[in-house]
Amino acid sequence: MSLSDLSAKYLPHIEEELHRSIQITLQPGLEDNYAMLAYHMGWESGPSQTNLIGKRIRPLLLLLVTEAGGGDFQAALPAAAAVELVHNFSLIHDDIQDQSPTRRGRDTVWKRWGIAQAINAGDAMFSLAHLAILRLNETTNLEIALKASRQLQETCLQLTHGQYLDLAYESTNQFGVEAYWPMIKGKTAALLSTCADLGALIAGVPEDLHTAYVKFAEQLGLAFQVQDDILGIWGDDQRMGKSSKSDLLTGKKSLPVIYALSLNGEFAHRWMEGPVSQAEIPSLTILLEAEGARLYAQNHADELTDQALRSLRNAKPQGSAGEALDELALQLLSRSN
Amino acid sequence: MSLSDLSAKYLPHIEEELHRSIQITLQPGLEDNYAMLAYHMGWESGPSQTNLIGKRIRPLLLLLVTEAGGGDFQAALPAAAAVELVHNFSLIHDDIQDQSPTRRGRDTVWKRWGIAQAINAGDAMFSLAHLAILRLNETTNLEIALKASRQLQETCLQLTHGQYLDLAYESTNQFGVEAYWPMIKGKTAALLSTCADLGALIAGVPEDLHTAYVKFAEQLGLAFQVQDDILGIWGDDQRMGKSSKSDLLTGKKSLPVIYALSLNGEFAHRWMEGPVSQAEIPSLTILLEAEGARLYAQNHADELTDQALRSLRNAKPQGSAGEALDELALQLLSRSN
Repeated sequence: MSLSDLSAKYLPHIEEELHRSIQITLQPGLEDNYAMLAYHMGWESGPSQTNLIGKRIRPLLLLLVTEAGGGDFQAALPAAAAVELVHNFSLIHDDIQDQSPTRRGRDTVWKRWGIAQAINAGDAMFSLAHLAILRLNETTNLEIALKASRQLQETCLQLTHGQYLDLAYESTNQFGVEAYWPMIKGKTAALLSTCADLGALIAGVPEDLHTAYVKFAEQLGLAFQVQDDILGIWGDDQRMGKSSKSDLLTGKKSLPVIYALSLNGEFAHRWMEGPVSQAEIPSLTILLEAEGARLYAQNHADELTDQALRSLRNAKPQGSAGEALDELALQLLSRSN
Repeated sequence: MSLSDLSAKYLPHIEEELHRSIQITLQPGLEDNYAMLAYHMGWESGPSQTNLIGKRIRPLLLLLVTEAGGGDFQAALPAAAAVELVHNFSLIHDDIQDQSPTRRGRDTVWKRWGIAQAINAGDAMFSLAHLAILRLNETTNLEIALKASRQLQETCLQLTHGQYLDLAYESTNQFGVEAYWPMIKGKTAALLSTCADLGALIAGVPEDLHTAYVKFAEQLGLAFQVQDDILGIWGDDQRMGKSSKSDLLTGKKSLPVIYALSLNGEFAHRWMEGPVSQAEIPSLTILLEAEGARLYAQNHADELTDQALRSLRNAKPQGSAGEALDELALQLLSRSN
């Protein structure tokens, strides 16, 4: 079975487990509270429903690692739902923090229900995530459930560390290029590496292979974020599936920008002067590339991708799920398609 | 030992466990992130330190129930820290949601570090709470740790339900007096009843006594909230330890107000017209009492207090911790002192 076959096999189960998780909140008098969560998950009826649901990359990765490690994907479903709920909790709060009015072409939760209710909806999604992972007790055993719960909770703490740095960097240009890595480790790589960690835990793979899976997913996460940073400046919108705004316009401290700031050249001088206008984007994009920032980032993305694929081989993934992990990595890193 | 003796015995252990929990976040580059959490907990040095720490009512209740149920309070410390951390997580987010600029006479976290960082600080406190309770695995066993973790997480979900209702009620006057109870069950009583639940679980008390402890704490929580609502309109500030603003000024949907709205009399008509000014407070307070709202709320507070004390007797609490529970209830409900 290919990645798309396995995706098609897993996705209905993932959605069912997610519905099961969130439906706990559907109680008399709380219908509109439930509606916020369902809306954010993309469960409103309508023609674009599938698109709104997003890619469910994290649960997919978790279930693939479970099967590639010789485990039963059904036993891992509570964990798969949990990582997707954590991801969505963080999106609801991120959108408030970044003041983003839209996500996937629709109003964000805070834009539609206000900041106060959106903070609360995120908090509810957070609790639902941790209630979901505790259900591993029913599909595996007490020890795995407790270990998995602690692992996921530690990851959530790392998410807040990454988010703290991201927010702190907004108001300063005084940091070196090395400051980039702890930020994206927390914001992007931590949750992805936990997906592999939980899958390997549930499958019960030997310790050395377990470590290789975790490294694979962490390197994949870092590579993905660097690639995303490059596409945020030099990508075409269709490929990214995002709005057409350049990351230069939003002032995002992406790797190319942080690198150029460390050079303290022409780009850095313009950046320090204040927000960039739409009209400046084309020339600044060319300047950034001329100063070597695109190549610098691409080299990192390539190196991390190679490391990730090496780690994956070290994990000795089995069967079609193992092959699908390779495919998933290449797709995520835009090397295929 | 009296309540104050037991308090003095427990408090250093509670503070130590809280420090242990939060110090996980004190990592290089994250010092200011840690500072937000420490600031909120009242750990900045200064003469008013003890006052800033607050009353730690929830961990105190939990440890008293543990000892009154025949358990070892030391084993319950991870849970005691966890409930206090959950309480403080909810305060950080509440202050943003209510746009409260001060708490305990100081700037709130969002006022000092901005909304984005404060949301994140609350999220971190939330994770720390759940990491704390998982440490019960070290002081009790796997099964208790998992049960306690699920119980606390379900309570956090109930908190979001109460908070949802509270926020939803802000923008409407169209609800009956019965709408009050699910709101304060979620906002106030759920966490207090969980303190008793966790204490009884850790002590391993028989099921019927366990149920009585949970009822006691829930009724205590409801009575406390109704009493707090009364004091928010008719109390004197010293006794409350709060700012001098009447709840009528902030538009809070407290029990006396909700009752008066259901009467649809003179008070309700004025309330519907829009925000109340400071100058109107004395006459509106008298009007509210004349319409029977104070008596209505006081009757409920008295009835709930009697129920709570009856439940406590049914729980057959042992030793000096048992007597201290009676004392704690009476102090909380302002019947003593």
